[in-house]
Amino acid sequence: MGSEQRVTAAGNEISDSFRAAKKRSNAIEAKLDANPGQFTMLTGDRPTGRLHLGHYFGSIKSRVEMQNRGVHTNIIIADYQVITDRDTTEHIRDNVLGMVLDYMAAGIDPSRTMIFTHSAVPSENQLMLPFLSLVTEAELHRNPTVKSEMEASGHALTGLLLTYPVHQACDILFCKANVVPIGKDNLPHVELTRTIARRFNERYASKDPVFPEPAAILSDAPEIPGLDGRKMSKSYGNSIMLGATAEETAKLIKKSPTDSERRITFDPVNRPQVSALLTTAGLVTGRDPAEIAEEIGDAGSGALKQYVTKSVNDFLAPHRERRAELARDMDSVRDVLADGNKRARAIAERTLDEVRSAMGMQY
Amino acid sequence: MGSEQRVTAAGNEISDSFRAAKKRSNAIEAKLDANPGQFTMLTGDRPTGRLHLGHYFGSIKSRVEMQNRGVHTNIIIADYQVITDRDTTEHIRDNVLGMVLDYMAAGIDPSRTMIFTHSAVPSENQLMLPFLSLVTEAELHRNPTVKSEMEASGHALTGLLLTYPVHQACDILFCKANVVPIGKDNLPHVELTRTIARRFNERYASKDPVFPEPAAILSDAPEIPGLDGRKMSKSYGNSIMLGATAEETAKLIKKSPTDSERRITFDPVNRPQVSALLTTAGLVTGRDPAEIAEEIGDAGSGALKQYVTKSVNDFLAPHRERRAELARDMDSVRDVLADGNKRARAIAERTLDEVRSAMGMQY
Repeated sequence: MGSEQRVTAAGNEISDSFRAAKKRSNAIEAKLDANPGQFTMLTGDRPTGRLHLGHYFGSIKSRVEMQNRGVHTNIIIADYQVITDRDTTEHIRDNVLGMVLDYMAAGIDPSRTMIFTHSAVPSENQLMLPFLSLVTEAELHRNPTVKSEMEASGHALTGLLLTYPVHQACDILFCKANVVPIGKDNLPHVELTRTIARRFNERYASKDPVFPEPAAILSDAPEIPGLDGRKMSKSYGNSIMLGATAEETAKLIKKSPTDSERRITFDPVNRPQVSALLTTAGLVTGRDPAEIAEEIGDAGSGALKQYVTKSVNDFLAPHRERRAELARDMDSVRDVLADGNKRARAIAERTLDEVRSAMGMQY
Repeated sequence: MGSEQRVTAAGNEISDSFRAAKKRSNAIEAKLDANPGQFTMLTGDRPTGRLHLGHYFGSIKSRVEMQNRGVHTNIIIADYQVITDRDTTEHIRDNVLGMVLDYMAAGIDPSRTMIFTHSAVPSENQLMLPFLSLVTEAELHRNPTVKSEMEASGHALTGLLLTYPVHQACDILFCKANVVPIGKDNLPHVELTRTIARRFNERYASKDPVFPEPAAILSDAPEIPGLDGRKMSKSYGNSIMLGATAEETAKLIKKSPTDSERRITFDPVNRPQVSALLTTAGLVTGRDPAEIAEEIGDAGSGALKQYVTKSVNDFLAPHRERRAELARDMDSVRDVLADGNKRARAIAERTLDEVRSAMGMQY
């Protein structure tokens, strides 16, 4: 899924399929502009916490653009993915509703984009059964992302983590999405989805294919570093949350580490911390980080932090204002989700009927 | 499930848990007689073909007894289990409806026993997601039955075969069954179901457990050999189908192999073929096979086969008559299944609601 910020497992074995996927991605991008209405997009997030600036620039922004271009956009809040590698669903309700708030504040319009949680769509989840029969255990094991996620979690590999790429295929195929915006890490999942769609059609629906083979749209968005120059991660406390207050943001930026050199320069390799602050300011202002560095020059990290704080808070102010306004009527937010879930159920029931019919499971 | 006639994998590692399960099974049997209404039973069949005499004596007969004692009985036709180790659902509709016919002809009363197919119950299948998170891949791999089924199938291990013990846990737990009649081979599945129920309750519902830990009722039914003395199996053509005609049955028994000794004796070790015929006759007449052998004596295998044919056909005549009568109104048979599926869906929706609520997944 789009905004998952997880460990990368860039195996050489995927480089060929990466090149093929990139080519397909570019071809699709061209067609998207010409005929957006022919495309159905599925993407989403795992509700393990609040959304941050990395999510915004890494995926949410482009989802809003897709929606506004006229693509059929669907956003899944993948709540079962929370328990692939952890033993608790603590705070899940807050996280889910917080996501709906952030999506809407960022410009997602629920009348055009279907927002839903997969736990509310039983007919989608049932697709796990036929789909699991279409893949071998060896194929599940070959998935490099699953391996690295398992290692990162420090847990034993659960049955759900092993099979969640198949569950992602359910997420994507139940609504017959034909485009899936992802980061490079998630390419193996989309490849598996293509395999499952193809095998289902060959085995059960050769005359009248049930599923499209979805194409990955590979994101060109730059990786956004955390404030300390490391990967943006909740556990590092280095992320600017979309829903934080201006004061919280100022405090977070204030305590972010820099280095002992007074003069500010943009040098990501040798000065990752200062450069992370410059990159952040560059993104929210649309300016070149090097130019910002030049401007601040000898004023030092204090001045840099002031600039970053102001530009981030200016940028996020309208988002936060809309978010706060929406949060005043949480019943409406819950209604948005309930409505999305209802629409997703109707689509899933239709697709499951086609699947059962193709398999002769109608008695 | 009860009547699965598959390869045995009697690992030593299960002998301890077997003893514990047998003890539990005996204790439950005693309680069943005292308070049948406190028990909910789930059992079923994989619709890969027609039911035969082995199914009747191995499981169907005791299901009818359970139903008549007042236990809440549920019979699942496990249609997704067909594709755990094969690439086709050919003839599935015929097999499923044929099973409903055989159940009813054998005395299953759909007003007291819920008959359903799991493909028609999305909320049951959704339980796969939380349940898969409660088991590790290593636990899935340790299941000796899965291993031997995979070897017997000659196919690569599919994701569905690897995880189908978890799906059986969904079958059992969605209706909160607390007793599951099985053969010894399926004990690891019930053990896994107990583990899943316990872990779910511990993790998400410690104050108010959602699931019972079901007990296996270990069948005392003798293993019924095929007509040729080998294991009863569709591929050997050595099984007497409940729904076959008297003529088909006579033909099958006539061509079944015996040995060159004229005198008929009951000696399963040295004369498996003759003894299989005697065992079959013994079961359907309620007589001792050795006594039947004595009676036939020097009359030879021709006379034996005549006796077996007559006794089997006499025994099955009322079943076949009821079956034929029911088959004259297939709309009603389909209605029975549709009604069972509807009831199963209502139960599954209630259980899934409890599960989502325990996990905080209600938004």
